[in-house]
Amino acid sequence: LEQDDLNTFREEFLDMHTYDQANFFIEQEEDMRQRIYGYLSPAEFAEIIESMEFEDTIGYFTEMNPQYSAAILSELPADDTADILNLLEKEEVMSFLTAMESESAAEVKSLLNYEEKTAGSIMTTEFIAIYNIHTVKQVMQLLKEEAPDAETIYYLYVIDEAKTLVGVISIRDLIIADEDTVIKEIMSEKVVAVSVAKDQEEIAQLFRDYDFLAVPVVDFQNRLLGIITVDDILDVMEEEASEDYSLLAGVSEDERHTDTAFQAAKKRLPWLIILLFLGLITASLIRQFEDTLDQVAILAIFIPLIAGMAGNTGTQSLAIAVRGLASGEFQKQGKLKLVLRELGTGMITGSVSGVVIAIVIFIWQQNLVLGLLVGVSIMASLIVATLAGSFIPMLMDRLNIDPAVASGPFITTLNDIISILIYFSMATSFMSYLG
Amino acid sequence: LEQDDLNTFREEFLDMHTYDQANFFIEQEEDMRQRIYGYLSPAEFAEIIESMEFEDTIGYFTEMNPQYSAAILSELPADDTADILNLLEKEEVMSFLTAMESESAAEVKSLLNYEEKTAGSIMTTEFIAIYNIHTVKQVMQLLKEEAPDAETIYYLYVIDEAKTLVGVISIRDLIIADEDTVIKEIMSEKVVAVSVAKDQEEIAQLFRDYDFLAVPVVDFQNRLLGIITVDDILDVMEEEASEDYSLLAGVSEDERHTDTAFQAAKKRLPWLIILLFLGLITASLIRQFEDTLDQVAILAIFIPLIAGMAGNTGTQSLAIAVRGLASGEFQKQGKLKLVLRELGTGMITGSVSGVVIAIVIFIWQQNLVLGLLVGVSIMASLIVATLAGSFIPMLMDRLNIDPAVASGPFITTLNDIISILIYFSMATSFMSYLG
Repeated sequence: LEQDDLNTFREEFLDMHTYDQANFFIEQEEDMRQRIYGYLSPAEFAEIIESMEFEDTIGYFTEMNPQYSAAILSELPADDTADILNLLEKEEVMSFLTAMESESAAEVKSLLNYEEKTAGSIMTTEFIAIYNIHTVKQVMQLLKEEAPDAETIYYLYVIDEAKTLVGVISIRDLIIADEDTVIKEIMSEKVVAVSVAKDQEEIAQLFRDYDFLAVPVVDFQNRLLGIITVDDILDVMEEEASEDYSLLAGVSEDERHTDTAFQAAKKRLPWLIILLFLGLITASLIRQFEDTLDQVAILAIFIPLIAGMAGNTGTQSLAIAVRGLASGEFQKQGKLKLVLRELGTGMITGSVSGVVIAIVIFIWQQNLVLGLLVGVSIMASLIVATLAGSFIPMLMDRLNIDPAVASGPFITTLNDIISILIYFSMATSFMSYLG
Repeated sequence: LEQDDLNTFREEFLDMHTYDQANFFIEQEEDMRQRIYGYLSPAEFAEIIESMEFEDTIGYFTEMNPQYSAAILSELPADDTADILNLLEKEEVMSFLTAMESESAAEVKSLLNYEEKTAGSIMTTEFIAIYNIHTVKQVMQLLKEEAPDAETIYYLYVIDEAKTLVGVISIRDLIIADEDTVIKEIMSEKVVAVSVAKDQEEIAQLFRDYDFLAVPVVDFQNRLLGIITVDDILDVMEEEASEDYSLLAGVSEDERHTDTAFQAAKKRLPWLIILLFLGLITASLIRQFEDTLDQVAILAIFIPLIAGMAGNTGTQSLAIAVRGLASGEFQKQGKLKLVLRELGTGMITGSVSGVVIAIVIFIWQQNLVLGLLVGVSIMASLIVATLAGSFIPMLMDRLNIDPAVASGPFITTLNDIISILIYFSMATSFMSYLG
């Protein structure tokens, strides 16, 4: 009877797509999970792991029996195993590597040495390389044997005797070609390869620009080390977009909506405490103008308006600059040009907003000087804010710091401070005309 | 001599990757561009167009002679032509369609009817469908003939006599299989298809979850209409990420870093003017508390601090909610759970920040009541801000409005207003203890 249950389960379960298998598995309690480990071969379970977020799999690897988990890690593509091991402590990594099949372990070890977020760390070593002197027929024969294990067979990379990358051929071209043709004659020599140290964001850009399904990864002597496939690039794009988005909002990239309130608070508090102290700087700056405030208390009511406008304008400029830098589309003079353009944009938006607010305040408060004061402050603040919002990320890019780190709250607070300084300095100067 | 020039140019130019050809072409002045049109066949130029941003190609289509541009539009994959025509005025579209080759024009017309950002609008109709009763050998023969024109040959979709989608087979499986096998026996029946009206963001999610290279698009009777390939999904992901990022920063999605200062200002001003008037609301609210301010002017110095903290906290919650919604990972109760979690997070971060600021102000100003007042205001503001930041996007999602539209500046300004109301209401109540 037990055997029957097992067979029924396997039949129905394995009939689902691996992503759906994963979703089913995730919803189970530990005792059911333990039974599933017993029901599935390491190879079958490895496919489920492949379609999960790797961060979520760590708990499962520790609750499995060690032989089963080592077998799964041996079955996974080496790049995925490396990604998973990278999430563990050093000692755990060593114990898993020792328990793994030695050939897989060696491949994984070589990948673990590459720096995070580079071509080396996202490439796979399960690819099919073919020699330029082989014929189409020989290659098709090779494919019949090796296709089941390769990560992709849609592009085959061609090497010479020295293992140097010399060309590429698509399976489409192979199918169309005559059986006896030598690869050298039909391959394309226009092969775009990336260096093993290249940044993953630039590689994603390359996939988008050239519509690649895969790119080869080479060392500095142009020897083929691995390939990167488009499914990994989808994850890179998601990761980079999520990173930029999080930084703009001032949240930690690794905060997830499934975190507990306490975990989320722990990740947000460092930022909030920094902002608190930046806010205290603003407060102590305004305090310098206490006399002005005491005499004309109505000045205070426009503080949120001026600071808010400056903060929002700065964030707009920041977003345009960061997006422009991420697109990799800037020509040599382009960055300076953008900063100058932002200056121009700030002058236009500042003048229009300044005039509008001056008129509104004049009508509302019947006070021309107050209207002019707020209007000119808005104008000056918007000009400075657009400049800061575009110049600071450009400067960071120049210093090789990811410009997205100049996050929203930082630029916003900086512009708060500057705009309030402008407002109160001007108010103090024109004090005698106010009242 | 002229003929020699042309040959040399063609040889060197066509040897480049189409993306590089496009970059070279873009940098030329109009007279050189006109010569290039003369040098290249419509088919050759179509490949260059394919690797450009379609928004940038409109100018070129209007400067070419009409026959040449119509020929290019006929050569392009029908989905790309439809995307380009979608950027034009109705009359222009009709004149291009009339000039195009009739078969291509018909295909493009059918695509133009699908709503923007749905499966129908991004699918291609250049796919290879095979019948379930054919043998591997017959299919390989078909591939030899049709492969050059198909958008992808890596997955072949299997239909029955009624053109209903019944399965899928990868080229990998075809290569491994025996020549006489019937497709029905080796195809996978687990084919994931999307409806022609499905939203492109959900389809991108599907590609990421299932690592697809292509998905078939079907009508409500499960008849195969087209396929969507992963290269189009890379563009969709970029577009959606850029859209969310822009909305968080309050910039228009179609603002580009290559716009002039005037164009950029024109796109930003509507938002800024709205924010200006929202800021005036804040100002008039504070004005209600003019008496309080007149008596205790020092209250004003903490306005930017309190509003800034509330604004930043709200944006954090907003980002987490929008990212969570975009990931499509929420279970049934998940959305309510997130709002409750944010409430918890707001209570923790609010309490910690409130206590810290109360102590700092007490030490700095030697004024316990002021410290408590600012501390409690910060705590209450942070709790309300986290709630608003998570509840509003959830509500919009429920009302089928894209939650990303609850953009950063909007949530920030709303939280500014709420936090200042809290601060001044409390200050007025405890007036007698302040001084």
